[in-house]
This record gives sequence, C-alpha cells and structure tokens, in this order.
Amino acid sequence: MNTFHIDWDREGRLGFPEVIYGAGKSPEVLLELLASYVADDKNALITKLQAEKAPPLLRQYPDAFFDQESGIFLLREEELSAQQARIGIVAGGTSDLFVVNEIHYTLQYLGIRSERIVDVGVSGLHRLLSRLDHLKSFSVLIGVAGFEAALPTVLGGLLPQPIIAVPTSVGYGVGEGGKAALHALLASCANGITVVNIDNGYGAAIAAFRMLGMGNSESL
Amino acid sequence: MNTFHIDWDREGRLGFPEVIYGAGKSPEVLLELLASYVADDKNALITKLQAEKAPPLLRQYPDAFFDQESGIFLLREEELSAQQARIGIVAGGTSDLFVVNEIHYTLQYLGIRSERIVDVGVSGLHRLLSRLDHLKSFSVLIGVAGFEAALPTVLGGLLPQPIIAVPTSVGYGVGEGGKAALHALLASCANGITVVNIDNGYGAAIAAFRMLGMGNSESL
Amino acid sequence: MNTFHIDWDREGRLGFPEVIYGAGKSPEVLLELLASYVADDKNALITKLQAEKAPPLLRQYPDAFFDQESGIFLLREEELSAQQARIGIVAGGTSDLFVVNEIHYTLQYLGIRSERIVDVGVSGLHRLLSRLDHLKSFSVLIGVAGFEAALPTVLGGLLPQPIIAVPTSVGYGVGEGGKAALHALLASCANGITVVNIDNGYGAAIAAFRMLGMGNSESL
Amino acid sequence: MNTFHIDWDREGRLGFPEVIYGAGKSPEVLLELLASYVADDKNALITKLQAEKAPPLLRQYPDAFFDQESGIFLLREEELSAQQARIGIVAGGTSDLFVVNEIHYTLQYLGIRSERIVDVGVSGLHRLLSRLDHLKSFSVLIGVAGFEAALPTVLGGLLPQPIIAVPTSVGYGVGEGGKAALHALLASCANGITVVNIDNGYGAAIAAFRMLGMGNSESL
Amino acid sequence: MNTFHIDWDREGRLGFPEVIYGAGKSPEVLLELLASYVADDKNALITKLQAEKAPPLLRQYPDAFFDQESGIFLLREEELSAQQARIGIVAGGTSDLFVVNEIHYTLQYLGIRSERIVDVGVSGLHRLLSRLDHLKSFSVLIGVAGFEAALPTVLGGLLPQPIIAVPTSVGYGVGEGGKAALHALLASCANGITVVNIDNGYGAAIAAFRMLGMGNSESL
Amino acid sequence: MNTFHIDWDREGRLGFPEVIYGAGKSPEVLLELLASYVADDKNALITKLQAEKAPPLLRQYPDAFFDQESGIFLLREEELSAQQARIGIVAGGTSDLFVVNEIHYTLQYLGIRSERIVDVGVSGLHRLLSRLDHLKSFSVLIGVAGFEAALPTVLGGLLPQPIIAVPTSVGYGVGEGGKAALHALLASCANGITVVNIDNGYGAAIAAFRMLGMGNSESL
Amino acid sequence: MNTFHIDWDREGRLGFPEVIYGAGKSPEVLLELLASYVADDKNALITKLQAEKAPPLLRQYPDAFFDQESGIFLLREEELSAQQARIGIVAGGTSDLFVVNEIHYTLQYLGIRSERIVDVGVSGLHRLLSRLDHLKSFSVLIGVAGFEAALPTVLGGLLPQPIIAVPTSVGYGVGEGGKAALHALLASCANGITVVNIDNGYGAAIAAFRMLGMGNSESL
Amino acid sequence: MNTFHIDWDREGRLGFPEVIYGAGKSPEVLLELLASYVADDKNALITKLQAEKAPPLLRQYPDAFFDQESGIFLLREEELSAQQARIGIVAGGTSDLFVVNEIHYTLQYLGIRSERIVDVGVSGLHRLLSRLDHLKSFSVLIGVAGFEAALPTVLGGLLPQPIIAVPTSVGYGVGEGGKAALHALLASCANGITVVNIDNGYGAAIAAFRMLGMGNSESL
Repeated sequence: MNTFHIDWDREGRLGFPEVIYGAGKSPEVLLELLASYVADDKNALITKLQAEKAPPLLRQYPDAFFDQESGIFLLREEELSAQQARIGIVAGGTSDLFVVNEIHYTLQYLGIRSERIVDVGVSGLHRLLSRLDHLKSFSVLIGVAGFEAALPTVLGGLLPQPIIAVPTSVGYGVGEGGKAALHALLASCANGITVVNIDNGYGAAIAAFRMLGMGNSESL
Repeated sequence: MNTFHIDWDREGRLGFPEVIYGAGKSPEVLLELLASYVADDKNALITKLQAEKAPPLLRQYPDAFFDQESGIFLLREEELSAQQARIGIVAGGTSDLFVVNEIHYTLQYLGIRSERIVDVGVSGLHRLLSRLDHLKSFSVLIGVAGFEAALPTVLGGLLPQPIIAVPTSVGYGVGEGGKAALHALLASCANGITVVNIDNGYGAAIAAFRMLGMGNSESL
Repeated sequence: MNTFHIDWDREGRLGFPEVIYGAGKSPEVLLELLASYVADDKNALITKLQAEKAPPLLRQYPDAFFDQESGIFLLREEELSAQQARIGIVAGGTSDLFVVNEIHYTLQYLGIRSERIVDVGVSGLHRLLSRLDHLKSFSVLIGVAGFEAALPTVLGGLLPQPIIAVPTSVGYGVGEGGKAALHALLASCANGITVVNIDNGYGAAIAAFRMLGMGNSESL
Repeated sequence: MNTFHIDWDREGRLGFPEVIYGAGKSPEVLLELLASYVADDKNALITKLQAEKAPPLLRQYPDAFFDQESGIFLLREEELSAQQARIGIVAGGTSDLFVVNEIHYTLQYLGIRSERIVDVGVSGLHRLLSRLDHLKSFSVLIGVAGFEAALPTVLGGLLPQPIIAVPTSVGYGVGEGGKAALHALLASCANGITVVNIDNGYGAAIAAFRMLGMGNSESL
Repeated sequence: MNTFHIDWDREGRLGFPEVIYGAGKSPEVLLELLASYVADDKNALITKLQAEKAPPLLRQYPDAFFDQESGIFLLREEELSAQQARIGIVAGGTSDLFVVNEIHYTLQYLGIRSERIVDVGVSGLHRLLSRLDHLKSFSVLIGVAGFEAALPTVLGGLLPQPIIAVPTSVGYGVGEGGKAALHALLASCANGITVVNIDNGYGAAIAAFRMLGMGNSESL
Repeated sequence: MNTFHIDWDREGRLGFPEVIYGAGKSPEVLLELLASYVADDKNALITKLQAEKAPPLLRQYPDAFFDQESGIFLLREEELSAQQARIGIVAGGTSDLFVVNEIHYTLQYLGIRSERIVDVGVSGLHRLLSRLDHLKSFSVLIGVAGFEAALPTVLGGLLPQPIIAVPTSVGYGVGEGGKAALHALLASCANGITVVNIDNGYGAAIAAFRMLGMGNSESL
Repeated sequence: MNTFHIDWDREGRLGFPEVIYGAGKSPEVLLELLASYVADDKNALITKLQAEKAPPLLRQYPDAFFDQESGIFLLREEELSAQQARIGIVAGGTSDLFVVNEIHYTLQYLGIRSERIVDVGVSGLHRLLSRLDHLKSFSVLIGVAGFEAALPTVLGGLLPQPIIAVPTSVGYGVGEGGKAALHALLASCANGITVVNIDNGYGAAIAAFRMLGMGNSESL
Repeated sequence: MNTFHIDWDREGRLGFPEVIYGAGKSPEVLLELLASYVADDKNALITKLQAEKAPPLLRQYPDAFFDQESGIFLLREEELSAQQARIGIVAGGTSDLFVVNEIHYTLQYLGIRSERIVDVGVSGLHRLLSRLDHLKSFSVLIGVAGFEAALPTVLGGLLPQPIIAVPTSVGYGVGEGGKAALHALLASCANGITVVNIDNGYGAAIAAFRMLGMGNSESL
C-alpha cells in the first residue's frame, strides 16, 4: 500500500534520530523497517518490543542487542567513550528495572553513559541519605518510581539538578497501571520536578539528552 | 414530620457518643439537635459547620466554642487533665490546618490531649528528621497531607507506631480535591499505614480513640 | 549491575523486617533475595507470588510454606505460642479468602495468632449479630469485603475496637477491581474505620501489628 | 421561536402526566408552561426548582405549594383519600431530606400516600431492626442514602418487597457528589435492589408508581 | 478452616433462597457447596460460572443444566406450569444474549416463565413499534442493552409497566465495560426506569421476582 | 506585552474567519480585539460570552447583537437571503436552548439559514415520528441532547443525512456536566453519527459549514 | 429461541444496509447470519471479527475476503468503478493501520474508493506540509490518530473539507485505550472537526458516506 | 499554636528559596509570613494569590508588585541585568496568559529574563513556522497550552531544546479543568517533552531554573 517514510531529517533537526515503537508492529513490518536503517548505514533502536517478537529479529541480525527486561532492541551496541556517567537513574526497587533499563539503553544508543542506582526507596530513607554526595555528581537525575512514587519528591527537596520523574505501572489496587504514581508526581509541590508518561523511559532519556545539549552545543 | 432519634446508646456500645454532621443541616435543625443534647445534659460536637451558620448557634449558646478554621463547634470545651499528649498530629504546612484542627478538637471533645506539629513537609526533610525522638513519644501518629502526600509515607518508614493518614483536598490540577493525595497514601507500599477519607479529620480522631482504648479498657 | 541492599535495619526501627513483594520479580531474582535472608539466618516472607513462580522456590526450599490462595510464601512456618487469637479477620464470603489468608499468614510470620471468620455477610445479618460477643473478644478487627463492602460499616456501628477495612477486587461491573468497595469504605461516615489499599492484606496485617505494639512495648 | 409541545398523551400512554424539570428553565419559561397546564385544567409538578426562582411563580399562583427543602412546586396540593401509606421512604439521616421530600411530594401529586422514616442509619442498627414489622407493611420500599449507602443493602437482606435505592449527593471526599453511594448500591450483591440516578427522587417515585400499577390495573 | 454457613433462612425471609456466585470459587469449593444443597434436598443455582469450571460439576451431577452463553448452572431444571410468560426480556441484539439468558434461567429457577425478545434495537425502530401490543401484555419488562443503551429509554416512553434496565459490557472504546450504557440508563430523564449493575442479569431477575410478589402474596 | 496576531488568513484557507472565544477574556481584551475587526471592516463573532461581560461591549457597539441564552455576540447581524433553511437543529427540550442558539447564530454569522426544532424528545416519540418528512428536507441535521442523549441515536436510525451530535451539560448525578451524554453518543453503534465536544455548538456549526461547502465549492 | 430479524429496510431508509458486529458473536451465529444474506442475494460485511473466528467462515465461503489487520470480513469484494478516490484516510504511523483498513474496506463495501496516506505524523511536520495540495483534492478527510492525536487538529487548521477524526487505542500509560486521544480531539478548539468513538473506523466510513450522499442524491 | 519554620536552608541546598503558596492561606497568615522574610532581608514570592486577598498585603507593602492575571505577588521587583532572554514562553492564545505570567514573574524573581510569545496556536500554523529561528535562540522553551494542547507536541517535532509543557485548565466539556490537555501532553510520543501539573507555571519556572544551572554552576 504505502511505503514507509522514515523521518531521516530528524537527527539534523533535533539531534536524535527517529526510533521505532515496537509494541504494535508485526515482526514483518519491523524487519522491513530495520532494513531501511541498515541500507542507510544507521543504527536503529526499537522500544517496547515484546519478548516473543525478538527471535525473528535476532535471527536476521545475530549481533543485535536485546534486553528482555525492558524490551529494548538495538541493531548494534554503541561503544561509549570512557566518560564519567552524566545521568543518574534512581529507583526504589528491582520491580522498576524494566523502565530503568529502557532509559539506560536509550541513552547508550544516544552515546551517553548513565549509572543505575536502584533499591534506594523511601521506606528506608538512610540508604538514600547516605548517597547524596554521589547523587550530586550527575548533571541530570531521572527518578523512576511506582506505587506512591515519593522518591522523586524526596530527591527534589534535597538536590539542585534537573529531575525528570518517570512514574511506573508497578502497583495494584489504586496503584494499578501507574495513575496514582503519575498524579502524585504531578501534584508534588514546589520543586520543579518534571514528569513524563507512565513507563516512558524512552521519553525521559530523550528529555535528558535535550538538557545535556544545552551546554555542549553551539547551535543552541 | 419525624422527630429525631439520636443514637444515645452509641457511647455505651462504642465508647464515643453520636456527633452531628453540620454540612448539610440548617441552623434550625442544628439548634433543635443541640437542645436534645442539652436536655440530656451532654456535651455536643458539630463537625464541618460552615462559618455562616455559626452565629445563630453562638447566640443561643454564648459559652460554646467554634473554630473558624475547621468548622468544629463544641457546646462546651472540655477541661483536659494535665496528661501528656498521646496523639501527635503531623502536617507539612499551614494549608492543612483546617484538618489538623478538626482532629485536635474532636480529640479534646473525647478527653484526649494531642499535639499539633505543622511545617515539617518533605521538601525540607531535615525539619522532620531532627524531631524523630519527639515523634517517637506519641502512642499514635496522625499524618495530614495534601498535594502528593509523601509525608505519611516517610513517617511510616521511620517510626513504629500506628500511623493514620488523612489526605486533604489542598492542591490544584491533578491534586484538586485530594484524590492524588488519597491514592498516593493507599498505594504507599509495605508499611502498614491506614487511611481515612479526604479531609476526614473527625474519622482519624475516632480511629485514634479506638486504638487508645485497646490498652486501657478491660471491656476489650 | 547493582547488588541488593536489603533494609536489615527495618526490624530494629519499626519492629518488623523488610518483606519481598513477589508480583513483579522473576524466580531468579527471588531466589537470590531468599539466599540473602538464609545467609543472615532470617525467615523471609514473599507476598503476592503468582502460583506459576512457586515451584522453583519450593524445589530450592522444600520445607517452605506456600499458600496457593493468597500467594504467600514463607521460608519457614513460625510456631506460634498457644496464645489466644488477638486479631479477628472477618469476611462476608469465600470469594475474599485470598485476602483473608494474606492477612492470616503475614500475622503468623510476625508471631501473632489470628482467627478467620468468613461467611458473615450483611445479606444475612443474623449470622453476624449472633456472634457479636465473640467478635468483642479481639483486640483488633480486620474487615475484608468486596462488592459494596457494607460489612465493615456494620461492624463499626456495633463494636468498639480498632477496625481496619480491606476492600477487595471481588466484583463486576462498577464493582470490578474494587474501587466501589474502596470508596464505600472511605465514605463510611462517622465511626473511625481506617482503610488500606484494595487487596492489601499485607498492609492490614502490619497496621494491626503496629496497634498491638502500642500496649506491650515500652519503646513506645 | 418554537411554541411548546407538551406531551399531553403521556398520561393516557403511561398513566402519569409530563412534569416540568425546573433546574435549567427561567421563571418566564416556567410561567408560560404553567399557563398551558392551567389552560388545560391540569395540575402541574415542577421538580428541582431553585429557591430563588419560586417567588415569581408563587406570586402568580398564590395557592400553589412549594417545598424549600426539595424544590418541589405543585400547582395545587392533591387531597389524598384516607388510604394507608403504601410506600415507605427510608433514610439514614436528615441530610437526605431534600430527596426524601422530592419522592414524597411527587407521590402525593400522583395520588399516592407515602410515609417518611428517617434517622434509621446503619451506624445504629437497632433503630432499624426494631421497626422491621412496620417496614414489612409497605408495598414498596424506597431507600435513600448518601455516604457509603449501606442502608438499602441492609434492607435488601431483611425484607422481601421491591426496594428502590436512591443514592444522594451527600458526602465529601470520595463521597462527594454521590458516586461512591451510587456504585456501592449497584455493586450490592445478590438481592434484587434496583437503583436510580443520584438525587433522582422523582424517578424513584415514578418507578414505585409503575410497580403499584401492576396489581390494580387491568390494562396490565 | 471454616465450614460454610449457608443462609438457609433467606427463603423464608425474602422468598428466594441463597444462590452461589460462581466467578471466584474453585470447582472444589463449588462441589462442596452443591453437596450442602443436595443434602438439604434443595435445588441450587450458580451464576457466572466460567465454562472451564463446568465439566467437573456436570460429571458429578449429570442431570444438571448448564448454559454456556450465560454461565448459569442449575442442579435441576424446574418444570414450569403452563402459565403465560409474565416477564418480557427485551434486547437489541444477539450480543447481549449472555445477560438475557442469565435472567431467563434465574427466573426459571424461581418458578417464573419469561419470554426473550431480542433484535428489536433502536437503530431499526419499526421492529419495536410493531410489537408494542405484545410488550404491553407482560407484568414487568426487563430491557437489556449495551453500547449507548437507548432501548430501555424508548421503552420507558411508550409502555406503562415497571421497567428494569440492565446495562451490558458489550461495546468498545468509551463503551467498553458498559459504563457508557450504565450512565445513559441512570441519566435517562423522567420515566421511572430502574437500573441494576452492568451484566447483572441475576439481580434484575430477583428484582422482577420481588415485584411479582407484590400482587400475589399476603405476607406483603 | 504582545500585540494580537489575528489569523486573518483563515478565511482564505478554510472559508471561515477566526472567531473569539469569550469565556476567559476580560472586557478590555475583548474590546481591543473587536477594534481590530472593525478596523479591518470585518464582522466579528464572540462565543461563550458571560452575560456580565456583555454591557461594556454593547455600550461601545450599540448595534451589536447579543443572545443572553447562548452568550453569542455578533458585531452586526447578517441579513440572510431568503433561502430555505439547509440545516435542521433538533433538540428534546428547552433546557438545551443555550446550545441550539449557539449553533443557530454561528450559522447566521456564516450566512447560512437554519431551523430550530425543539421539544421532540424520545420520551414522547410520536412528536418526532410525525415530523420525519420535514426532517428529511435538510442537508445536514444537528442533534442537541443532554441527559442520556438518545435523540441523535434515534435520528440516525431513521434518516439518511449527515448527523452531527452535540452532547450538552444538562443533567445531574451521573449526567452532570454532560459526560454521560457524550459517551452515549460516541458508543451509539453502527450509524455514522459524528460527535463534537460537550456544549460545543460553535464546533457543530463549523462542521456543518464544512459539509455544505462540499457541494457548492469548486476548490474542493 | 428467537429467529433473527435483520433490518432489511435499512438500505432503503438510510442508503446503507445492516452490517454484522463480529466481536461478540460465535462462528455458528455468524454463519447463520451470513446464510440469510446469501439467501437474499446480498453482500455482507462483518466488522471487528477476531482472527481466530475467520477460518470456519472462510471454509464455508472460500471466495470471501478477510483482512487480518482490521478484522473486516466481506462476503465478496466489490469491484469499484475507475473513479478517483473521494475520501482521504490520513494517519501518523503504521500502528494505526488496523483502523485505517477498517475504514478503507467498509467504504469499498459501500462502493466508494478511498486512498490511505499513512506516516505523516506531526513529529515530522514537513511530510504533511509537502502534501497539502494532494490532501485538498478529497471531498472528505478522515484523520486516524492514537497517542496525543494532534494530527487531525493540524489538518483542521490547514484544510477546508469536512474532517472526521478517529481516535485509536494505540498508546500506553495515560494514552492506553485511546481516552487521551479521544479527549484531545473533542477539546480541539474552533475548527469544526467531528469525532467518532475510539477505533470506530466503521462509523467514520458511514459518516463519510452520509456526507457524500448530500451532493449526489435528490432525495436529500 | 505553632510558629512557622521557614526552610531558610533551601536556597543553599537547591539554589532557590522557599516560596509561599497563597491559595489556601488567610491574609493574616500571609502577612505574618512576609514579616519573616522582611526580617531576614529577603525578597518573597507568593503564588496563586486570589485578587481579593491582595489589598491588605499591598497596603502593608506599597512597593510590592502584584499581577492580577496570574496572582503573583513579589515583595519587590528584581532589577534584571540587561541579559538576553534565555527562556521562551510560548502559548497559543491570550486565554493562557495567567499561566504565562506566573512563569514570567517567577523567573524574574529568580533573576532570569524570559520572553513571552503568545498567539502562535496550531490552528494557524504559519504564525509558528515563521518564527522558528527566533524560537531556536532560547536555552529552554516552555510551552503553555489548554484545550487539546497540540502546541508543545508541534514544538517538540521542530526544535532541539529542552521543552517543558504546562497544560492549562482553559477549556470546557472534556477539556474542563485541563485533564485533556495534560493527558495529550503526557501521551505525546517520542520527543522528550516533559510535563508539569495543570496551571503549574511556578513549577515550570523552577524546572527551567534547574536546567539553566547545569551549565553555569560548578557545584554540579
């Protein structure tokens, strides 16, 4: 019917290329899209790829990288320079790892090193307080939290950097699907935390990328 | 039409008398109800009395007590014995005072001394942390919070007592009306915090009263 | 990536240890966590463990206890002293058993005996009324209810103890997922019932534990 | 622009005439509509008439009846025969009187005597239980309830008649506007209670009228 | 743990026996409950029994009746006397058959004959208008409708009997789960339609049973 | 601060000029905007102008037209040619007049004659059925309905033209604010009705204008 | 029980025949319905047919057409005359193809040629802007969009035709199920876009068919 | 009762001082708070101050600044150095000015110059496209939008900077209160836009302040 019109311009315009949203696409469509990237000699990132759709892609591209936890698929893993991590990804527990990893690997695709700090939830505040100095060393903090999502609020009261909060769908009852976490983060008073959609690790990574661009690009 | 059937038994059955919900009743109905209490030589508590309905009641009962902030009306203020406060009411800011006071005066009506500790919000965590020892001295803690309501979650991770959380309707946007605060408190993982309805300071006071009764009553 | 930071302090701080939320963790992660508890010679409690994830855990720990109904996993069943049950768990029907059992086994893990009283729903009120004396004998009552959740409201009008209400996700139509039950419990006027999240049996058990601690601990 | 097309047929078709919904109409429009009824020598019923719109109507029709509480306006009060009341209107408290009266006066307009029984809320169950025999004497029961609306559920478990439940907008927090009451009534399991819209006393009265028609009309 | 306390009194009190809600119970529990009914020589009705749970029950009770469409299970089909159908069940299409049948078989269990009239939706109004005389012959009408649920509103404007409306979960988008149908039915102005929960065919049948009882029972 | 940038191009691009949304603008801002239109010798339309903001505008432009009901303000009333009305605006009652008029006067501003047909609600279906031939004579029908909004669904089953449905905020309980009407209209199955926002009479008028343009414009 | 009453009149009345909603019907019912159409020598359209229900239908009617993507089943594909496409179906990405195709094949069944233009999403606006002239050539535009659904809003600001917007259920977090897209489309200010239910491609096609009928039928 | 504990540390910790949320505080409380700032020789910012509460504050501090539109109160207006504006605040219309100004004056309080660009809504896209070069010159863009909030999505597809989106409560029907705008912004796919609460101009300003701090502070 239609052929695909990939937005090749996007990298020039925005600094990051078009990525592929994997959730609603068949393996056939995905393979066709990947072929376009290969033909153009570009690396490709697929987000939210369901595990059962990965094998045909990995058979075609055996050197590709797939993270089971987050559903991130990378045509090839980028080699990061030995820079210090500029982004800290902070979470309260291993249940949020699927979002933490989506952020981590999207940043890697964009050439940015990040550090994952999990298990510093607010129900044991001392674990967080004892690491404040380390947390101060990042340019941007991304707080990932489900349930009542108090963690980014606490971070926002203690630390001066830009803080991007990612509510997750982890929870049950009123917490199911992440609405309670989302609303708590938006209602968090007075500290300049910004928020992205539930489970939107990819969006948080791009937002952090935009912020990093402020300092090191003259086009801004 | 009907005459009122006040539940005079309640005090015997539950340990606390029937109180009057003031929001939807006219001054005429309220005066009629108060007269029943006076005839029975009982003190009476009206909750959520709108300020414009207080003057006719105060004209009839000049010694009564009315708190503008919370809409609590007491036929007479009970003299509390010089006991130590057993209930700590903790809030993040003065915006929540209307609920804090509803709790405070309901407890006073029930003969229980409480202490109000406001302005210890999580956006300045040190103010809370520096008072942990004092907070440990109460039998029951009641955390009052609007917006994202992170305060009771933080309390629950630091202190061992029963903690009753009261979400308030303070906030705007997704926080308007208190649903975000309520849901954050219910979704708060793993620490045995219990919750009452939005702005339900009265209910929190009764719940605390029930808990205090556990230790000092042989009928239990 | 990260190693786990279990909050070993929690028992000293709060009186109860950190438990493991089973729903979103893989068997591999759970086995790793259990190993930490074993290494520390501690009993462990996993909540909301899906049935299909139990076999690998039971193969590793053949003496562990797993309750199919509630998804509670205990590294070892605690021997309770021959005390009288201090907590009464009351429900209207067998459909709510998955929550009733989560409460029961969490309390057992904490060393507290409870009694389960099911099938006393409000549609046959005599069954409840005939057992009021027995219900009066508990220190704390936990009411578990789905659908319109009228049971805890009726309990609250008849009995003086602390009453913790647990709405359940049992129901359909407007009752689906438990929101109708939750809201009815929160809106229940005037009696000092407190509420936890939908299906949060674990939270209700911890809340009851906190209340029991009021009387028998001098640290309070 | 348009002239009004009153549905004069309705009485023949359904047994009850078209009534006037007062909330969104100006006094001018209402006076014009009333004139049509007078011209046709019919009694007229206006529902949900805001108090500030009644004076011009009462000036024009000094013998009309207006109930401040419910906003019911009747062109003339019908003389009821000395029949026994066939409909029992049951409520938990005086806060729901505005709906109780809307039912009562609508039934009076339809020529049916009803009895109002208020202050039998579930928080003092004995008041209800002691009147079961009286409640059994009605052909239809209408239960009016705000907050958690447990009353009609309790009635449904104890009494065999048709029970129409009217949730009211009385409440605050999650109970505000009556959604919690409505959902609790709809989710009420297993007893054949039927429900009308929040505050819809008029609808409940018409539904009861339809039920009474079953026995005494041969056209059915 | 607990033995079952079936509410055997209910039939004397309300005129209809306790039925079994099948959705959340295991086949083992259901078999145990059925045995109680058999031991008492009573017929039993299970509602909302998922198809996969029927075979073990049918193996044990080969003469029982199971309706795949509605999930109704009857220990034995009652022989109805050759009476005329007193209840008309009206629906707009075959998609709602699962609810239509739940009503039909529940009424059969209660000894009442009903007639099912489907495919008279409002998008082809003539099909409904041509059958008005037949519809007038029933004592009670039950309107079953998903999507926008306009059918019972149209019935209510044309026919004088009691009309019970059952919204169904048939629909998609904003109609998914039946909330749009439910709200449209509750908001339906001015005609005395009453409503039950989404998909609650059982409740509608019991409500109709209560109404039929008004005329032919002297206990009322 | 900023000067206004009115989208003067719009008329060339879309065939209709930019109009002024009156609800959130002060009289000062509105007067400034009107002056731009006058300077450009254009007629101007303000929608949703609150009655209290009209007097200063009418003082400045005494020949302007203001409709109290709908809040429509026209700098000058356009003289319509003696064409036959091409748009039929159909509503169930006078409560919806504020939206009916918003459509009518917006179309007048666009030079299109429309006819208002109110009081043909579905609770008296004969009034609608007797006017089908007249309704067939319009090019486009706009159905305006609050409460359960069954009217446009019935129209859609009987008439072949494009039907634009406008849900209104008229109603109470679940109908309050118009969500029930909106959802019923969107869920209306199978007949190609299209919907605009609640109370959006202006949008419906523009949509009808777009449809009329299909036939008589060669640029399409 | 009942035999089917297909609304054969509909084509005469509305210009399009009754179609079959496939989602909730069993293959047996569907085959029975198809047989009625064949007996009447009519083509039949089934919408939203789940893939697993297609094989038995295709075995019976091997020449039928089934589109896996959209679940559209046509008894026979209509031969369209070599007309120019009059309807443009515009979407932002391949994820919305299931709705795009439902529109396309429904229009084909109605004898109308349409053109599908996908991958012109607003995140790369130049792709849309470069095709404005082509888009102007259609009589009606149908915009299909999930997530934030900004595309039809942008179309509405640039193009003069009737624009029907179809929100899709594509998205996650707050976008899950399509409510965010639906609300954004309804709230889209000032441009006369009309909206159908989420994923309701069929309804959009019928609405477009009604619009096309305005010009070429004298009965209108 | 309690004296105020202002979080004087905040400036050292986060770089910006504690501000006063004006909405729920009485003029007496506000005056008391302002006195603390004056005593400490600090400038103070009050947000969301209702117009009727400003006069007593202005009487006490005649040199203070109050913006009627946004409810911003500044003890004294800071003199900004003649720097170029680093923040661009972009909106579609004057209805959003109350939020635009809250951002502008908060930034001024923090010593940062911003530029307000309003009336570039997406319904006239050319106005936005013609100013892309100017928009590229800012370090951070803040997009303010009500209704369907498509503007920040369009910005995100065209420009590379950090983009903070502020949904506003401007709209009606489904757009009332700003939920539709909020959800559309959160669901906006793939471009790294971050979002704050509805009408939270203050939060957006602080978030921008945090981002600016990344480049020019060595403590980060």
